[in-house]
Amino acid sequence: MKTDTILLDHGGGGKMAHNLIAEMMIPKFDNPILSQLNDGAIFNIEEQRLAFSTDTYVVDPIFFPGGCIGDLAVNGTVNDLAMCGALPLYLSSGLIIEEGFPVSDLEKILEMMSTAAEKAGVKIVTGDTKVVPKGAVDKIFINTSGIGIISGKVNISSHRACPGDKIILSGCIGDHGMAVLTQREGISFDTSISSDTAPLHHMVNNMLAACPDIHVLRDPTRGGVATALNEIALQSNVGIRVYEETIPLKDDVVGVCELLGFDPIYVANEGKLLAFVPPEYADIVLTVMCKDNLGEDAAIIGEVIPDIPGRVIMQTRIGGTRIIDMLTGDQLPRIC
Amino acid sequence: MKTDTILLDHGGGGKMAHNLIAEMMIPKFDNPILSQLNDGAIFNIEEQRLAFSTDTYVVDPIFFPGGCIGDLAVNGTVNDLAMCGALPLYLSSGLIIEEGFPVSDLEKILEMMSTAAEKAGVKIVTGDTKVVPKGAVDKIFINTSGIGIISGKVNISSHRACPGDKIILSGCIGDHGMAVLTQREGISFDTSISSDTAPLHHMVNNMLAACPDIHVLRDPTRGGVATALNEIALQSNVGIRVYEETIPLKDDVVGVCELLGFDPIYVANEGKLLAFVPPEYADIVLTVMCKDNLGEDAAIIGEVIPDIPGRVIMQTRIGGTRIIDMLTGDQLPRIC
Repeated sequence: MKTDTILLDHGGGGKMAHNLIAEMMIPKFDNPILSQLNDGAIFNIEEQRLAFSTDTYVVDPIFFPGGCIGDLAVNGTVNDLAMCGALPLYLSSGLIIEEGFPVSDLEKILEMMSTAAEKAGVKIVTGDTKVVPKGAVDKIFINTSGIGIISGKVNISSHRACPGDKIILSGCIGDHGMAVLTQREGISFDTSISSDTAPLHHMVNNMLAACPDIHVLRDPTRGGVATALNEIALQSNVGIRVYEETIPLKDDVVGVCELLGFDPIYVANEGKLLAFVPPEYADIVLTVMCKDNLGEDAAIIGEVIPDIPGRVIMQTRIGGTRIIDMLTGDQLPRIC
Repeated sequence: MKTDTILLDHGGGGKMAHNLIAEMMIPKFDNPILSQLNDGAIFNIEEQRLAFSTDTYVVDPIFFPGGCIGDLAVNGTVNDLAMCGALPLYLSSGLIIEEGFPVSDLEKILEMMSTAAEKAGVKIVTGDTKVVPKGAVDKIFINTSGIGIISGKVNISSHRACPGDKIILSGCIGDHGMAVLTQREGISFDTSISSDTAPLHHMVNNMLAACPDIHVLRDPTRGGVATALNEIALQSNVGIRVYEETIPLKDDVVGVCELLGFDPIYVANEGKLLAFVPPEYADIVLTVMCKDNLGEDAAIIGEVIPDIPGRVIMQTRIGGTRIIDMLTGDQLPRIC
């Protein structure tokens, strides 16, 4: 759908965002690194392969169960680098703050960024702070960009999914999206759901030690698992079949999703990953993941198939099959 | 001055911004790379020295004589890398767009980013786009981060100013700030002032070929030449003396500044640099700069002195001397 103005849906991580990027960004900034459309750019400087990634965080509210915009911004970019198979090293921090923002809240956010960086083993080495007049930004937005190094053998790309690959999901989905949603003004649930924001690169490192030839890694953030799978199906030109009953879910998340009419496979995660692994390595990678705190509920949820290239189908609990499309609109604006 | 809320002045590039960074950011993100406080972070990956920088652009209006937020965002980060003595290679682009923003304006901005990147010889290799509901951001903000490589001999840092160094300014000051200001709602001047936004690394490259031991480079953006000189005086613990009559200025800029009560040495520039050069190299570096389009009005405007460490003084046109302090408040919010 062509429009004259930018809609919320253009930023939702779904189909319209995909089209905006494909039709406007890629042709304008035309270069082979960008057009790979991985979670980060991958290139060589001298002999060293590097990953470089950026993300802006506009989450509302800025504090939520399990985290805040600060640790989310650190973990999010750490994870984008991890999804390139990189060891994250250095981050930048770009703050945009609304005039009148409480200094105590800023201190809390910086403290949580600092703790998250320490936990992830990355350093925030450069930054920029803008303050804009009241009303020009809603409270605080944070951009983080990051640099990581990729070891010699690793070759992870959203173009590398192959028929036969097993798809492993690292844990229960929908926690971040529902944790943020339950804090929105006007909606208030008494649940124990909290954001899953966490740095995934330690687990990825162990996964790569077990199987250096992981084909694809992706963290299903905006648009959830369904959108991430669709993007990979398109980029690798393969079909994907998932089995509904194998997808790990928490009862609380299922409950809130049902109540509000959300499908958890479209809800954002901030500490989960999807791995596409050659079938002979699937069990060993799964074992490694299950030993990690962040992967203890990991499960094989599907596989890559040669038919229906570019499409994702789900075998439902009751034995039927349905097409899982990319998210069309923006289900939850400002979720990250 | 301690406050409970963030004020516009905290983002102005002046004294309060300086204190916010020194008192809140540096202690929280404590690491030796950040605490150098150069325009970008400098570190090694394997044998290669890299520079890494970030900046968020919130300029208002988004289109102004001589440029727009898009080319400003590209040139600004290119220049931050150039001020580390780096050859800029790769940029990221993080857009935050307000719901309802005209697609045609976005296309224009992306086009100007693309042209600026091409002109600067850098590639935009990774990006992120967020759309937020109407009122959550004013039109569009852009973060760019960048990576560049530094050749072996170069050692530029705001800590390296030495007594005896000559200070070269690359051209007339105040153009960017006044070009933006004359477009603000309610203020309208009929002038030919346009922004000086431009990439400086080609000129820097030639300067380094003439003198690999340039001590300091700084682009005087927010807070202008006065604030940049004060930061360098503090970081190098030296005194700085400048001569008012040597500072290149355009009549138009002087006129508008006088009318509105601005001092051009505090007004933002986006295509100018200050170089601190050992005295024996000053003339040759100046000659190289004057041969470049972007440095044709370059002039030696002062020198580093051993007394008054941390302070900047100006010998005025009429022969007096005055202390040039760092900008205290935010003279022009949203200038870049």
